[in-house]
Amino acid sequence: MLVVQKYGGTSVGSLERIENVAKRVAKARDEGKDLVIVVSAMSGETNKLIEYAHHFSKTPSKREMDMLLSSGERVTAALLAIALNEMGYKTIALTGRQAGIKTDNAHTYARIESINTQRLRNEINDGNIVIVAGFQGINNDGEVTTLGRGGSDLSAVALAGALNADACEIYSDVDGIYTTDPRIEPKAKKLDFISYDEMLELSSLGAKVLQNRSVELAKKMGVKIIAKSSFSDGDGTVIADKGENMEEVLVSGVALDKNQARVSLRDVKDRPGIAAEIFNKLADENINIDMIIQNASENGTTNLGFTVPQSELERAKKVMDSFKEEFGSSDYDENVAKVSIVGVGMKSHSGVAAKAFEALAKNNINIEMISTSEIKVSMIIDEKFGELAVRVLHEAFGLGE
Amino acid sequence: MLVVQKYGGTSVGSLERIENVAKRVAKARDEGKDLVIVVSAMSGETNKLIEYAHHFSKTPSKREMDMLLSSGERVTAALLAIALNEMGYKTIALTGRQAGIKTDNAHTYARIESINTQRLRNEINDGNIVIVAGFQGINNDGEVTTLGRGGSDLSAVALAGALNADACEIYSDVDGIYTTDPRIEPKAKKLDFISYDEMLELSSLGAKVLQNRSVELAKKMGVKIIAKSSFSDGDGTVIADKGENMEEVLVSGVALDKNQARVSLRDVKDRPGIAAEIFNKLADENINIDMIIQNASENGTTNLGFTVPQSELERAKKVMDSFKEEFGSSDYDENVAKVSIVGVGMKSHSGVAAKAFEALAKNNINIEMISTSEIKVSMIIDEKFGELAVRVLHEAFGLGE
Repeated sequence: MLVVQKYGGTSVGSLERIENVAKRVAKARDEGKDLVIVVSAMSGETNKLIEYAHHFSKTPSKREMDMLLSSGERVTAALLAIALNEMGYKTIALTGRQAGIKTDNAHTYARIESINTQRLRNEINDGNIVIVAGFQGINNDGEVTTLGRGGSDLSAVALAGALNADACEIYSDVDGIYTTDPRIEPKAKKLDFISYDEMLELSSLGAKVLQNRSVELAKKMGVKIIAKSSFSDGDGTVIADKGENMEEVLVSGVALDKNQARVSLRDVKDRPGIAAEIFNKLADENINIDMIIQNASENGTTNLGFTVPQSELERAKKVMDSFKEEFGSSDYDENVAKVSIVGVGMKSHSGVAAKAFEALAKNNINIEMISTSEIKVSMIIDEKFGELAVRVLHEAFGLGE
Repeated sequence: MLVVQKYGGTSVGSLERIENVAKRVAKARDEGKDLVIVVSAMSGETNKLIEYAHHFSKTPSKREMDMLLSSGERVTAALLAIALNEMGYKTIALTGRQAGIKTDNAHTYARIESINTQRLRNEINDGNIVIVAGFQGINNDGEVTTLGRGGSDLSAVALAGALNADACEIYSDVDGIYTTDPRIEPKAKKLDFISYDEMLELSSLGAKVLQNRSVELAKKMGVKIIAKSSFSDGDGTVIADKGENMEEVLVSGVALDKNQARVSLRDVKDRPGIAAEIFNKLADENINIDMIIQNASENGTTNLGFTVPQSELERAKKVMDSFKEEFGSSDYDENVAKVSIVGVGMKSHSGVAAKAFEALAKNNINIEMISTSEIKVSMIIDEKFGELAVRVLHEAFGLGE
């Protein structure tokens, strides 16, 4: 049985914590598993190096940033290998290059193009636990590249895929994926299982355990991810294709995003291309649009609404001013939140959205905007009702049971 | 004109100091020089990493130590490149591998086997200042290796040799090579020039500016070294083949080593192989021998003397006990010092040793042991006269003038 384990910055944030990780790895080895361990830099190290670079330049060369930032993971990898060797476990540490990770040329946010697993397989066959410095690879010119924030997860998933590993265990300081944020709803329950698609929706809605890039890659390569805590024992949450017995679950989780501002344009002249013009202009100004709603046209005009991050509302207002000939009136609200329910079950069940609207209505929470996908319903509401809405929906779909 | 500059750990010990180095490099660039800059890790970094490793193991795997320790120089190289780019100087940072430095397999004290200069030459021809992470290379299997303490000097000299550079400037916190330690003799004078051979003798006698391995390599490859301070302006000291006009200088410097203990064996049975047996046994016990003196034999016995580091005297005594059948009596002195004069001039001038003995005698300093080479006279004296002997010899050979 071959398992890839990945330990994040918090899990290896001190020498004591690296020792703790070494013990966990040793235990898995004692269970007879072949192991490839991917490690991040010790927490704080990467930020320190970025600060160093910014001391010299606000726009440091990306190539040199990669040379700089790739050093932290090498330190952790070497230290963990030293610790395991001392404990009597045959272990070797490899850089991204030595682990065969080839990327494209996009320094600081490179994409993995291929993994040559020969060295990895040789080391495993030689009886080694293989430690790999995460977050890094080399391009075809032999330049060191890094994969962007959260890149160690990506290294782990890609290695698990290339090696056809039985699982990719991602360790952090939380013990799995929850039905919602336990700080908002104490009844939040850890999920035993969540599908790739639900996880993708949840992480784009603000769940921070796993980044979308890693989940997407896992889905593409069919890698079973298990999200676990490195500080406690527990089965964690399995992220994989929808299991047989998951058919019944309508909704898996509730997410809240309070960093939203709403823009509403009324009586927009309904001529072809007007929406494209507006959103192109917003894109030119680097304003991130989240939800977009356009109502069906009436009397040759339409209503257009969208949300932006709160910090970008002022700039969005200016862009709207440049289009003021095109619509009747506008309305802005900085104090809105987006509450979302996610679940593959809703694909095949009608009435999920209605049940959500009803639950909010019963609690006098007004819904300002709605957006749905096959496995998600998102609602824009008054920001002050955000936490209440999470608890109401969590209860309505029986997630705490 | 192509110059290799090397900046040590103290010279790049903080972000401000790296900035200072960047300004120096920029100035040399403004003078029209092509530049390859070799950097060490920021001072303290390497020791920190060694401590980390020793937290886990007293005997960490050397391969993993190299992966660990090679990270510090990469950080400095990237930061210096970022600083120079920001100042408008086209600059690229290279790892040891990218700089083409190939070594043997001796992890933690590897020897440079070859340098493939193609990438370096391409970058220079492209108008780049090239920053190279010192102290490191890779072996034929692509494993990261390091060159041992002081290895960045070695990187610099080897690169200067391979690139046929006009000079290799070694920057540290002292402004050159002195006739003796200025803390002992305030009249000590910075030398404008010193030959490779004199430098080799001086550094093996305790001068700490340059390590022997680097000087030896410079001599072998004909690389002109210039030892300079990164904190002040000044011409430094040139280390090269003996210049034409250096013929007249008898003595270039005086060195003192107070970390010596003397072992004297009297009436040693003069049978073949006895000396070899004694010194093999000492070597087996990892006791470092410095000076060895054996007097001509009288009446079938001989007197044998040698010096060891003070901390190793007790162990040396034990070894001598195991040979007590072989000699009449033994005598140990922990409180001795070695004072030496060095100079290529003494090769062709008789009377240098006599002049030294006379100078010490005049000051009632008794000489316990003497050892000479073509360009060096070393004398073991009572430790308490060490500093006085340095001043007396410095004066006798007119070094302060």
